[in-house]
Amino acid sequence: MRIGCFRAEGERRIGVFEDGEVRDVTGEFDTFRDALSRPGDAAGVGGDTFDTGEITYLPPTTDENTVFCAALNYEAHAEESDIEVPEWPLVFLKLPRTLVGHREPISYHTRVTDEIDYEAELAAVIGESARHVESDEALEYVAGYTILNDTSARDRQLGLEMGGDRLLDWFSGKAMQETTPVGPYVVTDGIEDPQDLAIASRVNGETMQDDNTGMMIQSVADLVAFVSSRVRLEPGDIIATGTPEGVGTFQDIQLYPDDTVEVDVEGIGTLENTVEEVRE
Amino acid sequence: MRIGCFRAEGERRIGVFEDGEVRDVTGEFDTFRDALSRPGDAAGVGGDTFDTGEITYLPPTTDENTVFCAALNYEAHAEESDIEVPEWPLVFLKLPRTLVGHREPISYHTRVTDEIDYEAELAAVIGESARHVESDEALEYVAGYTILNDTSARDRQLGLEMGGDRLLDWFSGKAMQETTPVGPYVVTDGIEDPQDLAIASRVNGETMQDDNTGMMIQSVADLVAFVSSRVRLEPGDIIATGTPEGVGTFQDIQLYPDDTVEVDVEGIGTLENTVEEVRE
Repeated sequence: MRIGCFRAEGERRIGVFEDGEVRDVTGEFDTFRDALSRPGDAAGVGGDTFDTGEITYLPPTTDENTVFCAALNYEAHAEESDIEVPEWPLVFLKLPRTLVGHREPISYHTRVTDEIDYEAELAAVIGESARHVESDEALEYVAGYTILNDTSARDRQLGLEMGGDRLLDWFSGKAMQETTPVGPYVVTDGIEDPQDLAIASRVNGETMQDDNTGMMIQSVADLVAFVSSRVRLEPGDIIATGTPEGVGTFQDIQLYPDDTVEVDVEGIGTLENTVEEVRE
Repeated sequence: MRIGCFRAEGERRIGVFEDGEVRDVTGEFDTFRDALSRPGDAAGVGGDTFDTGEITYLPPTTDENTVFCAALNYEAHAEESDIEVPEWPLVFLKLPRTLVGHREPISYHTRVTDEIDYEAELAAVIGESARHVESDEALEYVAGYTILNDTSARDRQLGLEMGGDRLLDWFSGKAMQETTPVGPYVVTDGIEDPQDLAIASRVNGETMQDDNTGMMIQSVADLVAFVSSRVRLEPGDIIATGTPEGVGTFQDIQLYPDDTVEVDVEGIGTLENTVEEVRE
């Protein structure tokens, strides 16, 4: 099943996506958190149906959730970043207000940054509260998978100097308002092995990243287990699993207004967004 | 006015704190976010009254909010940390699930860390949505002030090595479950100048930090303006303004189970919490 959030006729809704349409199943659930804890219950629910061309896609999460992002989780990306793999997973946070849905603009805050970049990522969406779970059972707490484009303001993320030391700034570099696409929806079945999915990104149609989730250093299960060792994971939390090599900054490529970024993950689909300059 | 959140008779409530009692004003407001946007409306509201000795204090915020924490915002603390002041404010995030209320235990997660530490901080609580506000108007968006003890798992925050480089880990070091006291409540009036408040911490009665908020590098107003340049601030968001010198780690002092930490901020009161070992 493909379950997510959208706006139609001015209202925020929960929907099941099939064949270019979305069926409103809002009435079956208290919240999207509730829907993720029992997505199967949406199967038989009738509701208004909309053409997906007519709706606004919203991030498939809630304002009470958090996005936990793994840094440097593909060996080749750690190498291109000239940073060794850390001793334990380095995780940083994005806020719900940092997110945008499929086909919504990626905000390019030109008052704050002169360099933004894409990062294709597989994201796991939690379906059941999880605390201190082991890797071998961690996937039982995952409701499904979605796609996240972990855009970065590279001059902010990598540009904070203190006495000659480089300091990574995850807030200014990664968490600005409405900069991070996620979606289009959560795929709750059909992905047997999250470590064997083709993953790719394209900018204006040109392939920039092309890899497989099997190249992760820490598996999805390891990351879920790791985050659950620090905090209690709740339904709707998103764990973004890091990006493969091929990001722009190490090739002197950056995004500009009107550029379109597509991220494909096998078994999920394509997350597509266009960059838009935002001055306010 | 002193307005905050508490639990009594099994229910989460909003209250006004006066003279050792708290008056339930929950009915006047949709949410605590709503209360912070118009705290004056709580003044005339009648409601059940509880002795503060009988209640559980909850963090004065909501699950939809975020804590934005300024690092290295007192010159002398930056010096004791052997880190130069960064070029722009370095901000990291704590989650609502990271917080605990006044008199609730500070969780010492001994499965994950062997060294936890205190940090006394003045915290501003937002009362009105704020985006790209200037410093000279920023305090108009602040509903009031509270106290935050920005506890840290120092071995995790400072211990992540990558090829000889030290990497600051704000997630494992600062954002674990139920580790960060905040409260007891938000003081919405009477603080004329947030840059002239005595601030101190004590561990088991012994003074560890003793300074004045006038020693901040970036003022409260500057920090509110800065964060609002990255994201839209919402009512209930907390901006923790950094800690003065005197944290434990640079004196080979750490916290142990049953230690009590008190943080005083002039005009607000005392935030008091005891460390408790948590293995699950």
